[in-house]
Amino acid sequence: MSGVASNCPLPISATDQILLGHGSGGKLTAELIERMIVPAFSNPALDTLDDQAVLAVEAGHLAFTTDSYVVSPIFFPGGDIGELAVNGTINDLAAGGAQPIALSLAFILEEGLPIADLRRVIESARRAAAFAGVPIVTGDTKVVGRGNGDQIFINTSGVGVVAPGVRLGSARIRAGDAILLSGSIGDHGIAIMAHRAGLELEGDIVSDTAPLHALVAALLRTCPDVHAMRDPTRGGVASTLVEIATRNKLGIEVDEAAIPVREPVRGACELLGLDPLFVANEGKMVVFAPEKIADRALEAMRSHPLGRHACRIGSVTNHHPSVVELVTPVRGRRLLDLPFAELLPRIC
Amino acid sequence: MSGVASNCPLPISATDQILLGHGSGGKLTAELIERMIVPAFSNPALDTLDDQAVLAVEAGHLAFTTDSYVVSPIFFPGGDIGELAVNGTINDLAAGGAQPIALSLAFILEEGLPIADLRRVIESARRAAAFAGVPIVTGDTKVVGRGNGDQIFINTSGVGVVAPGVRLGSARIRAGDAILLSGSIGDHGIAIMAHRAGLELEGDIVSDTAPLHALVAALLRTCPDVHAMRDPTRGGVASTLVEIATRNKLGIEVDEAAIPVREPVRGACELLGLDPLFVANEGKMVVFAPEKIADRALEAMRSHPLGRHACRIGSVTNHHPSVVELVTPVRGRRLLDLPFAELLPRIC
Repeated sequence: MSGVASNCPLPISATDQILLGHGSGGKLTAELIERMIVPAFSNPALDTLDDQAVLAVEAGHLAFTTDSYVVSPIFFPGGDIGELAVNGTINDLAAGGAQPIALSLAFILEEGLPIADLRRVIESARRAAAFAGVPIVTGDTKVVGRGNGDQIFINTSGVGVVAPGVRLGSARIRAGDAILLSGSIGDHGIAIMAHRAGLELEGDIVSDTAPLHALVAALLRTCPDVHAMRDPTRGGVASTLVEIATRNKLGIEVDEAAIPVREPVRGACELLGLDPLFVANEGKMVVFAPEKIADRALEAMRSHPLGRHACRIGSVTNHHPSVVELVTPVRGRRLLDLPFAELLPRIC
Repeated sequence: MSGVASNCPLPISATDQILLGHGSGGKLTAELIERMIVPAFSNPALDTLDDQAVLAVEAGHLAFTTDSYVVSPIFFPGGDIGELAVNGTINDLAAGGAQPIALSLAFILEEGLPIADLRRVIESARRAAAFAGVPIVTGDTKVVGRGNGDQIFINTSGVGVVAPGVRLGSARIRAGDAILLSGSIGDHGIAIMAHRAGLELEGDIVSDTAPLHALVAALLRTCPDVHAMRDPTRGGVASTLVEIATRNKLGIEVDEAAIPVREPVRGACELLGLDPLFVANEGKMVVFAPEKIADRALEAMRSHPLGRHACRIGSVTNHHPSVVELVTPVRGRRLLDLPFAELLPRIC
């Protein structure tokens, strides 16, 4: 506690691993935050280094969301935990019809994590936030001992602004609503599963992680009266639909043939024994729109690059409340239900 | 994926441990969230079960903050990780002069965690949020395998409203500012350290975790022109002051005798070889106020139960920039500096 050490702080490059001390609020913590994290995300709100960011907002409706990311492995084909954490929280805001105004970024690091891996994740989160145009304005860094964590966990929370006249929510879904999907499903989950399994797959399967707020903005400009949106992450499109059907006591009919699944993903699903409907995505949106605006909504989605393969996959009905029926390509019907438990652990 | 299982979901009471499946987006996840978590925190924004909460806000300044809690053990004298996570984030908002309007709550659970422990933490977070009058409006639950986490990690983020005319920030601190402290220090950190060390201490030492937004409101009603506030958590009051001095290139003088440390805490610190100035708190606030309002600010703080032992501990000076000088009871001087690394790991 003499003043000497302050003149020779350990440069972050002098250790190649995260130490417990990086999380204890001393010099190492300050160095990690001020030399590695804050410079990557620099903006006026963050640069104050206060424990909270202060943002000017207009009167209106604010969306607020949180998500922790524990994906394993942290690097996977097409992305990594940093990009995923940024896009995932942007998408949770977008699903509420909000345009994101700011994100937080909180790391839980495991002792021994290579600094190079952390740098790579920070750079990826930085790039994703810059690409999306959403500043990271506040953050936190904790370190836990070896065996008490797993490399990197990230929590991103976000705030966004819901435009006047927009009022989305799953409670607004009605019988008669069309169900639209912004593109093909399964890429994110299968990219990770195949990577974990060490599978060499034909064709490129990479995570579909992408920020959907601009797609949502394009949709809501034309169709502000969309009823609800959900991004089908854990549990996939099937779980999203089953949850809506169960909670709202509505029936849902889905046309299996209408659901876009890219051929390499379909092949990998067969190999791995997975149904693509249950596989996680992080760059796709399910939209519930009143029938009378369904075509217009589809057109608006297709006008955006991330929605160019958007399609109608089904509709909400008063028949068979709480039940999701899949109409198979041979006009058979099967019921979709939530898997009981483990399907794809740590996929997001 | 047949419809059968939906008629007989496993009641949460049928397993006494968290399973990986509680985090995989299937039935177990839905059950955990809908039966255990949401009912505890029920409010209109949360009950929608959408992936984001939507809140009405007035035009103005919004504070936004995040903090992950990895404290070990999760239960300690005077509190637990649930209460700490709620109060800690409320205090990060309060330190920005904001009144909290909503919190998020994100769990990372380790497989095998006793459900009873999770219930206890949820109940404690519920009680803390209710006591503070701040709703938990959105959340997330992830599960990681045994040995990839440590019982429970919690991230709480928060949004709050900064009243018109209030503009706090460490960049506003000036030479001449008085430094006020809301009460005695060290209780939280020492309660946890002593508990970990298995020490039986004379006198009660319990965590001082408390939500300080009402104390801050009382202070700002009288003194909206306070310059800055910081809650001295990791690294204690000393680290807070060293950070401010270093970043603002200002000197700080602290009167050691003026810093309230309760006798049992002082004794435990001697026993454990710790300086109370470096021990974490989670219910105390350091306030930087222009000299001319310092007395009024102190009086306002003392008018609130959580600030009744508030006192003036020092001042900001143009002398010795970037250096914090502690004036000892015998009028000696010692320099305070950040500890290099490990002091009290996983204290918050």
